[in-house]
Amino acid sequence: MKIAVLGTGMVGNAIATKLVDIDHQVMMGSRTAYSDAGQEWLGSVGGKARIGTFADAAAFGEIVIDCTNGANSLAALRQAGATNLRGKILIQVGNPLDTSKGMPPSLTMCNTDSLGEQVQREFPDVRVVKALNTVNCDVMVEPSRVPGDHDLFICGNDAAAKREVTGRLSEWFGWKSANIVDLGDITNARGTEMFLALWVRLWGVLGTPHFNIHVIRGR
Amino acid sequence: MKIAVLGTGMVGNAIATKLVDIDHQVMMGSRTAYSDAGQEWLGSVGGKARIGTFADAAAFGEIVIDCTNGANSLAALRQAGATNLRGKILIQVGNPLDTSKGMPPSLTMCNTDSLGEQVQREFPDVRVVKALNTVNCDVMVEPSRVPGDHDLFICGNDAAAKREVTGRLSEWFGWKSANIVDLGDITNARGTEMFLALWVRLWGVLGTPHFNIHVIRGR
Repeated sequence: MKIAVLGTGMVGNAIATKLVDIDHQVMMGSRTAYSDAGQEWLGSVGGKARIGTFADAAAFGEIVIDCTNGANSLAALRQAGATNLRGKILIQVGNPLDTSKGMPPSLTMCNTDSLGEQVQREFPDVRVVKALNTVNCDVMVEPSRVPGDHDLFICGNDAAAKREVTGRLSEWFGWKSANIVDLGDITNARGTEMFLALWVRLWGVLGTPHFNIHVIRGR
Repeated sequence: MKIAVLGTGMVGNAIATKLVDIDHQVMMGSRTAYSDAGQEWLGSVGGKARIGTFADAAAFGEIVIDCTNGANSLAALRQAGATNLRGKILIQVGNPLDTSKGMPPSLTMCNTDSLGEQVQREFPDVRVVKALNTVNCDVMVEPSRVPGDHDLFICGNDAAAKREVTGRLSEWFGWKSANIVDLGDITNARGTEMFLALWVRLWGVLGTPHFNIHVIRGR
């Protein structure tokens, strides 16, 4: 399968590397066609992938994974181009982190809006699925790092796209379908993005970003 | 022990009733001394408690549990009075829910401030501990409704107050100390209050407010 990974940071690296490892055709996109970070990643996977601009990657991918820093995601997706993205599933991973006020980060938007919604509003012809944004990138691609059952949350306006993403997250990374909770339409991204505020504090308390939560139903 | 419960809503009812059941001396406070809601609650516990104004209750309690609706908490605590609250532990339970824009609710403040912080700023001589605000009131007082290990989060500036609250939550309601996570100072209330945005959506998906999360550390 041809997969575009937008973003050359930790998240893009982790996801793109895992997808190459399981023999998918991957193109990593960044602002420039031959970015240092992109070339370094390409070397790390023995050249078994491609790099290019956001637009090159979006045109290449049958499915597009937006791993850009949330503060820059809209700008990156504009560079990717609405025409290249049209009709495709876009897994939107980044949270709109604001580190300008120090640590822990706050969000550049929340409460009555979310990055997931902004992306869907700006690209109405793209099948946006918010996913993976409540766990560290090492856990994203290797959920067995955390023992037992623990959960992912997805949301989006396109039910078929969410079913496909649920299947892909199982197939690519090993997430159990039963542990992928569909919250509903894209406005539910407010809930998963705002979880960041608790997540960063738990990271501090636990001393590792390798954790997750399990939702347990009572009586 | 003499305990003040501020607020006559669902949360105040659940907590005050449980404390009466285990033979504590409880006064429920509300805006007026003989509110209908207060009298109804007093009848429901067979008269084995007291009701009064917020100020009456705050003066009575050795420990004060603020179960008021978060949108009204500051006003209620002003009525309770800084003198009556001085030096006491205040368990601050409510989230700053904004239901004016429909459901699910948003928050009246978040991201770079929290209700827990506002209360601590306005009442610097009170030992504020934010707690219990990430679960439904039935789960607050009966954590065994949810099977297995699941977690509460507390925060506040006074370490001794947090240790005492941890002990009380175990003694009163049966929370395991190991499942009460101390996030740090009161600014961490941003994390637990913002969890509301995910909580309300999980409520919708699960079809019950009786659930909780367990944080699982990985490798």
